[in-house]
Amino acid sequence: MSSAIAKPIYFFDEADGKNRALLGGKGAGLAEMTKLGLPVPPGFIITTDICEKFYEAGKRLPDGLMDEVRKSVRRLESITGKKFGDAKNPLLVSVRSGAPVSMPGMMDTILNLGLNDQTVEGLAAQSGDARFALDAYRRFIQMFGKIVLGADDRQFEKALVGNGINNNSSDEKALRQVIASFRSLCEATGKRFPDDPYKQIELAIDAVFRSWTGKRAVEYRRQYGITPDMANGTAVTVVAMVFGNMGRDSATGVVFTRNPETGEKKLYGDYLVNAQGEDVVSGKANPSHIDQLESEMPQVFGQLSQVCQKLENHFRECQDVEFTVERGRLYILQTRTAKMSAGASVKTSVDMYHEGLINKVEALQRIDPEGLEQILYPRIDSHVKQKPVATGVAASPGAASGIAVFDVAKAEAMGKRGEKVILIREDTKPDDVPAFFQSVGILTTRGGKTSHAAVVARGMGKPCVVGCSQIEIDPEGASFSVAGRVAVSEGQKITIDGSTGRVYTVEVPTVAPEITSEFKEILQWSAEMKAIRIRANADTPESATLARKYGAEGIGLCRTERMFNQHDRIALFTKMVMAETEQEREKALAELERLQKSDFKAIFKEMQGLPVTIRLLDPPLHEFLPKEEDLMMQIFELKSEGGHKAESEMLKREKMLRRVRELSEINPMLGHRGVRVGITFPEIYEMQIRAVCEAAADLTKEGVKVESQIMVPQVATVNELATVRHMFESVKRDAEHRHKIKLKIVFGSMIEVVRSCLVADEIAHVADFLSFGTNDLTQATFSFSREDAEGKFLPFYLEKGVIAVNPFQSIDQKGVGRLMKMTIEMARKVKKDMEIGICGEHGGDPKSIEFCTAIGLDYVSASSHRIPIAILAAAQSAIRGNKSKLSRFLTD
Amino acid sequence: MSSAIAKPIYFFDEADGKNRALLGGKGAGLAEMTKLGLPVPPGFIITTDICEKFYEAGKRLPDGLMDEVRKSVRRLESITGKKFGDAKNPLLVSVRSGAPVSMPGMMDTILNLGLNDQTVEGLAAQSGDARFALDAYRRFIQMFGKIVLGADDRQFEKALVGNGINNNSSDEKALRQVIASFRSLCEATGKRFPDDPYKQIELAIDAVFRSWTGKRAVEYRRQYGITPDMANGTAVTVVAMVFGNMGRDSATGVVFTRNPETGEKKLYGDYLVNAQGEDVVSGKANPSHIDQLESEMPQVFGQLSQVCQKLENHFRECQDVEFTVERGRLYILQTRTAKMSAGASVKTSVDMYHEGLINKVEALQRIDPEGLEQILYPRIDSHVKQKPVATGVAASPGAASGIAVFDVAKAEAMGKRGEKVILIREDTKPDDVPAFFQSVGILTTRGGKTSHAAVVARGMGKPCVVGCSQIEIDPEGASFSVAGRVAVSEGQKITIDGSTGRVYTVEVPTVAPEITSEFKEILQWSAEMKAIRIRANADTPESATLARKYGAEGIGLCRTERMFNQHDRIALFTKMVMAETEQEREKALAELERLQKSDFKAIFKEMQGLPVTIRLLDPPLHEFLPKEEDLMMQIFELKSEGGHKAESEMLKREKMLRRVRELSEINPMLGHRGVRVGITFPEIYEMQIRAVCEAAADLTKEGVKVESQIMVPQVATVNELATVRHMFESVKRDAEHRHKIKLKIVFGSMIEVVRSCLVADEIAHVADFLSFGTNDLTQATFSFSREDAEGKFLPFYLEKGVIAVNPFQSIDQKGVGRLMKMTIEMARKVKKDMEIGICGEHGGDPKSIEFCTAIGLDYVSASSHRIPIAILAAAQSAIRGNKSKLSRFLTD
Repeated sequence: MSSAIAKPIYFFDEADGKNRALLGGKGAGLAEMTKLGLPVPPGFIITTDICEKFYEAGKRLPDGLMDEVRKSVRRLESITGKKFGDAKNPLLVSVRSGAPVSMPGMMDTILNLGLNDQTVEGLAAQSGDARFALDAYRRFIQMFGKIVLGADDRQFEKALVGNGINNNSSDEKALRQVIASFRSLCEATGKRFPDDPYKQIELAIDAVFRSWTGKRAVEYRRQYGITPDMANGTAVTVVAMVFGNMGRDSATGVVFTRNPETGEKKLYGDYLVNAQGEDVVSGKANPSHIDQLESEMPQVFGQLSQVCQKLENHFRECQDVEFTVERGRLYILQTRTAKMSAGASVKTSVDMYHEGLINKVEALQRIDPEGLEQILYPRIDSHVKQKPVATGVAASPGAASGIAVFDVAKAEAMGKRGEKVILIREDTKPDDVPAFFQSVGILTTRGGKTSHAAVVARGMGKPCVVGCSQIEIDPEGASFSVAGRVAVSEGQKITIDGSTGRVYTVEVPTVAPEITSEFKEILQWSAEMKAIRIRANADTPESATLARKYGAEGIGLCRTERMFNQHDRIALFTKMVMAETEQEREKALAELERLQKSDFKAIFKEMQGLPVTIRLLDPPLHEFLPKEEDLMMQIFELKSEGGHKAESEMLKREKMLRRVRELSEINPMLGHRGVRVGITFPEIYEMQIRAVCEAAADLTKEGVKVESQIMVPQVATVNELATVRHMFESVKRDAEHRHKIKLKIVFGSMIEVVRSCLVADEIAHVADFLSFGTNDLTQATFSFSREDAEGKFLPFYLEKGVIAVNPFQSIDQKGVGRLMKMTIEMARKVKKDMEIGICGEHGGDPKSIEFCTAIGLDYVSASSHRIPIAILAAAQSAIRGNKSKLSRFLTD
Repeated sequence: MSSAIAKPIYFFDEADGKNRALLGGKGAGLAEMTKLGLPVPPGFIITTDICEKFYEAGKRLPDGLMDEVRKSVRRLESITGKKFGDAKNPLLVSVRSGAPVSMPGMMDTILNLGLNDQTVEGLAAQSGDARFALDAYRRFIQMFGKIVLGADDRQFEKALVGNGINNNSSDEKALRQVIASFRSLCEATGKRFPDDPYKQIELAIDAVFRSWTGKRAVEYRRQYGITPDMANGTAVTVVAMVFGNMGRDSATGVVFTRNPETGEKKLYGDYLVNAQGEDVVSGKANPSHIDQLESEMPQVFGQLSQVCQKLENHFRECQDVEFTVERGRLYILQTRTAKMSAGASVKTSVDMYHEGLINKVEALQRIDPEGLEQILYPRIDSHVKQKPVATGVAASPGAASGIAVFDVAKAEAMGKRGEKVILIREDTKPDDVPAFFQSVGILTTRGGKTSHAAVVARGMGKPCVVGCSQIEIDPEGASFSVAGRVAVSEGQKITIDGSTGRVYTVEVPTVAPEITSEFKEILQWSAEMKAIRIRANADTPESATLARKYGAEGIGLCRTERMFNQHDRIALFTKMVMAETEQEREKALAELERLQKSDFKAIFKEMQGLPVTIRLLDPPLHEFLPKEEDLMMQIFELKSEGGHKAESEMLKREKMLRRVRELSEINPMLGHRGVRVGITFPEIYEMQIRAVCEAAADLTKEGVKVESQIMVPQVATVNELATVRHMFESVKRDAEHRHKIKLKIVFGSMIEVVRSCLVADEIAHVADFLSFGTNDLTQATFSFSREDAEGKFLPFYLEKGVIAVNPFQSIDQKGVGRLMKMTIEMARKVKKDMEIGICGEHGGDPKSIEFCTAIGLDYVSASSHRIPIAILAAAQSAIRGNKSKLSRFLTD
């Protein structure tokens, strides 16, 4: 190794613990702890630079590296007073991987290195415990054999069993036999098991470097998006061995500085007396809770508590610490930032702020917004280990248990009786929505995240799993099968988890959400910090109440068609669609208007003057009629039934069937819907606009503040918008005239059709505000029907990396984002201060919120249930985007 | 009228005949003819300015206008020697409308004005024919009564019949009775019939001005897109009456300077002896052909021939001339540019060029490209007046008669026996295509211009009417009904006209297309003139031959899936989709490869080194499987049949049904198709690319020049394209290696997904060329599914003017066009000379071709059958876009 090359090896006491890129996480932690004066065994780090060189040289250790290693080992010898390969007092080391980014368990580690037939006897003599030494030796051979020589691990396990060995209960003779068979298993690979400790360490270092590109490691990095600029190789740490298995005064364990489940400020972890680290990790033995240590080894416990406090004070994050006690003496082998549950993350962040450890900005940045879902919905108790029977698409978060019911009417009736019901269907229609209200969860075998069931359930905040195609509902609809075998019959209990898509055929315990005071504090700070307004997608007064509770600043999307999704209303709507005379239609519309008006009044009242954006009818009319197959089936049944009454019922169905066929479409997503329906059937939009105006007028006269926005969906051309605006102005004028008041109602356009982006300047002349509907815009921009894509090719695309991120989850910034930027620019050229927002599901996605903030949107509107996530994400975006304005916060 | 205002009235001999805007078409023509010394009766014109003032003043004649009229009438009196209102020698005039743009019959005209109970006697004495005078008077009262006083015309007709009056056969007494009843019909309106001729003329002028905003006129202008800048009012011409009904030496008629049907250079027209103009127009009498005039009135005929020659020489366009012969003296009452058939337009333009009347540029500009469809396809003989039984969507031009057949297999069998068959179906599937080949025309009751039937028929150039929803096919499929009554049973003859959408229940005579030498000459000139290359959409060697014949410069779109649309192939393709083992699939693919290769070879050979762009598979796989309903029906039938064989057949169908359901999609237009299939089932694209390479290699070795382009459909992301490029390079390299030659095959992308426009720079790095697929791009940009839109709301939108032009017919320049311009700009920034074209149906639309030329596309690709239209349109675009470069042409 030429001297021109950077230093390849650092001892813990000479390395810069901040330089994780060079030292790897493990090495950096050890160096940092050494500097803090904590009891770390001595050792050194071979840098990640060397790993890079290893690969540059075609997987060969750089020339001269082993000379440096030998030098370092000699220094280790002088520190420990032991000698590498010495038959009397042998130095043993561990050789571990450690990348700049944590990849737990993904790369290789070898312990007890330095043992051979001679040194094992020295270790036995030194420790006075031959069984311990032999056990250490057999462990070493097994690890080395497997990792370096490529021997089959199952053969080792077989040999253990064959020789009657289990943990902590084996006699010397058996151990010696095992060692003999282990060594011959190694020889069987055709490679020699080296007795020379320097050969051992050389091969071990080589193996650790190789494990960087092992299958598991590569897959892990792909999965977690770890790119070369984040971590370009692993470091190798070589540490003098300490032993937790040297008797009853020895132990090994893992401790969290605070409880990673709850955030409670109290040590949390497990340990095993007289054991080596891998015994804790492997789960072979039953460890004790760390509380036990206080009575079992009070001094060590005290020392460990102090170490933890010191580590927290230093790193200002909860730590996950590995320790070993060797004959009463505590050693710290590793520390890293603890992975915590969302609740713990919230609590510890707020606590640490109040303890003065961190400031508010740090506290906010520490919490994963997506993780908050765990807190906001009921979840499966993490202690339960139950195997799911099937997994579908996680469509609406939260977990629920209930009675499996396959029939809509039955589900509704049972729900009304107070029973907990999970509705199971192939797919659902607006007709089924009354049953949704009465169910605790919905499971379908078809459809994706935009299927009817998914969208409605999310709107209601009910757990929902869709597209669970492993499940087959039997034709009689009284059970479902998985892999050809009946798994659940009607009436049995099942559990679904809409956060993971899992389905269980038993009742699984769930944990209810809880809004803690710390959580409220985080929301409070976030609201102060964020640079974009947060509104809610809310269609009902209940949803509006929830949104307000979480701090929404208005309603950005109120889907009027959702209001039709109740039994009495859907019947009215069907009547309206089926009306044969103007009179019949007018009558149905008048009744619908009365209902919509009362809904709007309730929502306006709840929002007390905060803006409420009402979207006019969007879905195609055929969504409100029964399905063709169902009608055909009913007609068939009535036919075979016969009789006078059946005859007349049949004729009714046949008429409806004709209408259903008339309205049916090949590509309903691109069909007769939204403003296209509003223009061809103007009486529907007129009715809705009138309901808004009347509701606003009534409340205004009662002294309630109302700020309403009416929004037109699916606009492609300015003429469409102008046509509806004309209608709006005339209805509003009329209402103002009748009530003799001025109404504060503005008029705007959804931007969800590509063309509306391209002519945003024209649209801006006619609209008072714009709101992006990025669900539909994404579908049109990609020519992907979300339901078809997510069921067919999109999973494949994501797996193969053809598309990096699902564009329906996070805004596609290059494509859809470009259209959004164009739109904003063109629209604001026409009206400088035009309000532009986004509704639709991207409004609740943290990455999308950051993008929306950056391109200058006024607000994002997210599902009521996701408002806290959106508020936190908005605060984080503000922090990242605008560090300079943070002074107040940083010192607050 | 103040003197500061422009001159309100011009006499024919003082007006500028070029100023149609001021004088209207009729007035300008009369002025021009007067200047040419042609025998025009004297008269004057009230300008369109006055019409505008009339409307500005709230439909009131401007002050002072009648003074000017009186002055002009006095001048007319002095020219004619007659006197307005004189009981002895009365001057009679016609008062006619005449707008700057021809609107034949849409506004009002009054003849014989000046008659009353006194002057009629003078006319009788003057003419020596009391019956003539009384007839003129009753005609005047009728016209005046109807137009000015608003009397009900049917009452006049009743009165005529009641008094036993018919043309040219009525006695004086009857006429006097009629006049009396006519006058009382006028009085019945509550308005007075004025006897004062000046009151008459005042009211007549007022009525003509009013007729400018009459319902018919407004509708006509909307229909033909006549905007205020093209014509902002009508002029009024007042002409001294001449009479064609003054005896056997008088006549009236209409003559075309050349035959407007054929273009033959020979007078063409009709006349009536002893009649007034309206008799010819109304069709009440049977006129004689103009040839007759030569023997009947040789001198007049000679004079008329000279007049026609003079008019043609002057206007350099065929003229449509109205004339009257009054007692042997010829008068010309009107001339205008003749409306001609497409064939006549081609012939006369070429003839006039050879006669030295016009240059090539003028000749080219004179022909309506769209009109050429008439020449290129068989058409219904224009002399046939047959009422259609129903009208559907005109989906593929041309007319055809044949035997109505409702069953696909039957149609195929009968066609193979040489019978002329029209296939009638609700809709069609690829399965049905073999029957298309054997039919002379296709009629469906569902779908729009992009339905399967429409697209396939257009590709084959076969007449097709789709979406003919008035027709209901009976469930047994042996007849169809219209309005509940059986209209056609299987085996009967029917005729369809794919140019108009009309369906006839009889055999209607059709005219075969004929490519004349003049037509070839026009194509030749166009090819020299145009500034963009024209390629053809051609999927078969036959279509390629046709394209070459018309002068296509390559194939811009060869849809490989069309090649699967034959019985043997579709079965193979189905086998491939249904394959359960890798082996089965490989076998089917190998067979398909062999067939595709031979198709490609045939097409390459035909195109002799001209570029051929091959698009890889585009439609979703389910298009190649039977329909769900059909399978269900078959299974049902097999079930009731029973038996061993039926059982096994049933199982097969059930398996297929499962696959059909698995592949079914909610929005197939946005589903699993194009490159998405190519990536998830790579073996399909590999097979197709290999077939292209092998075909090219074979031919290259045979010495045939091949220039091929492979094109990927539905690309949304650069990674998709890169994935297929990788496949392409490897297959090509392999073929080159195997055959030891270099292949000239380039690789490009369709641009038909919005996102591909937004990331065109990225795409350009991976593509050698780009080709816009504006059909799909338009659907995605508007979020309109064409099939659904054209069946549902688009007709309504077009009718109400929400959308001015169907964006599927002509490129939406503001929206889709903007995406295209962005794409071109971004792509050429990456590759300066990148070839960019357009395929899809807009490639054959003249307006779209002009747009494509303007934005710098290299070529447009149109259906083989529309190549002549595209070439002519391209030439016209070049002329409009680039007048300065025309010098050679202008003098050539």
